[in-house]
Amino acid sequence: MRLAILQMQAKAGDVAANLARIERAAEDAAAQGADLLVAPELAVTGYGAGEAMTKLAEPANGPTAKHLAVLSARLGIALAVGFAERDGDTVWNSAFYVDGEEPPVIYRKAHLYGPYERGLFTPAPPGATVFEHRGVKTGMLICYDVEFPETVRRLAQTGVALVIVPTALPVSDHSELIARKMIPVRAFENQVFVAYANHCGADPLFSFAGLSAIAAPDGSLLAEADATGEALLIADIDPARFAASAEANTYLRDLRV
Amino acid sequence: MRLAILQMQAKAGDVAANLARIERAAEDAAAQGADLLVAPELAVTGYGAGEAMTKLAEPANGPTAKHLAVLSARLGIALAVGFAERDGDTVWNSAFYVDGEEPPVIYRKAHLYGPYERGLFTPAPPGATVFEHRGVKTGMLICYDVEFPETVRRLAQTGVALVIVPTALPVSDHSELIARKMIPVRAFENQVFVAYANHCGADPLFSFAGLSAIAAPDGSLLAEADATGEALLIADIDPARFAASAEANTYLRDLRV
Repeated sequence: MRLAILQMQAKAGDVAANLARIERAAEDAAAQGADLLVAPELAVTGYGAGEAMTKLAEPANGPTAKHLAVLSARLGIALAVGFAERDGDTVWNSAFYVDGEEPPVIYRKAHLYGPYERGLFTPAPPGATVFEHRGVKTGMLICYDVEFPETVRRLAQTGVALVIVPTALPVSDHSELIARKMIPVRAFENQVFVAYANHCGADPLFSFAGLSAIAAPDGSLLAEADATGEALLIADIDPARFAASAEANTYLRDLRV
Repeated sequence: MRLAILQMQAKAGDVAANLARIERAAEDAAAQGADLLVAPELAVTGYGAGEAMTKLAEPANGPTAKHLAVLSARLGIALAVGFAERDGDTVWNSAFYVDGEEPPVIYRKAHLYGPYERGLFTPAPPGATVFEHRGVKTGMLICYDVEFPETVRRLAQTGVALVIVPTALPVSDHSELIARKMIPVRAFENQVFVAYANHCGADPLFSFAGLSAIAAPDGSLLAEADATGEALLIADIDPARFAASAEANTYLRDLRV
């Protein structure tokens, strides 16, 4: 399978503009043969939509889901996109995986980060959201989740080959460490691919660190974005190419707890 | 407290030479004000002692322990040193922490690496070996153990501030990734110090990667050795200097399982 990541400068609160940006990226990615495009955390609303977030939250089968399903079917590319999910009075920080007219797969973030997210969203119980994409067993996490080794381990122990991570990593003293050391280490210590799709630029509330990347099971980066500016990263996800790494680094088999 | 690490070129099978090398390093470290010296995995016998290992294995209160206790008491510096431990018919890949005439603290490696170690040693059940060194709560792991995030997490959840890791990391495609990305990530994701003491050079069976390091809770390296050549690394272990990192990165508090 061929994976694409959109490092995106979202417009906070402007769903139409963000969906148009994702549509353009999906067209570019499909033209390059990609069959899955991953966009950042809360890409639909923008991460820094603030108080508008609650109003913009939609059900998992709402108009945005339908719009993306039509887009996915038209281009033949699946889409993994972060959005604010309304479920009755509850609002989750979610991402859906949409593949044409199939019912979407939903992941709800378990580890909310900081007072901003905790003020807007309900944390979901941790669990393993796993699905098959074009023959590749795939799991999903959102942002802060992936910083806990337990989350990627849980997915790897179900046998996933790929973990996709819509994220909104802000600029900090630690952003380079997280994007360029922790993400490859998560891939290596589980012998999986990790696709980390971040925002770039700034919205009224946050500045984002960019540095999106696709890490391979041997800890190398198959594609990586700069700290600033939008980017469309493309990489082939081929576990067979990393059979030697899987053979040499048998963490899942050797773990004793 | 002030911590020293000896990156060491051991002589396989030559206990007297290795103890003499450790003694010289302990004198250097003590002269620089260090109160703990960490030497590599199986530093007493050499990692690649091969079949001689079984014969050289000693009880935890054997002559080497007594020798190191006298040395420690003379210099006023504690010593953490890897050795082959005999316990009846069982041989463990162990490390002891010796502080003067106190009974030593013993850690037995839980995750044996590869057929060489599995042929020589019995794996210990995983657990948390924790002790107080000069007021700093300290845990111990050996080499491959630290590559599993579960092991450092277990120690961090007992409240340790420092994890010391005698190691024997061989030269491979992954040695730089482990020593320079995984070790800082282990420190950061648990907000602890990690002291990683490796061999350098070669013995008849293995070539070692050097790259010993002392990582801080913010993922920075307080001291680091080259890939080749012996080195004595020194760093002050002062959790108060990393209070801002602990405040900003609340992984232990935020983890949901």
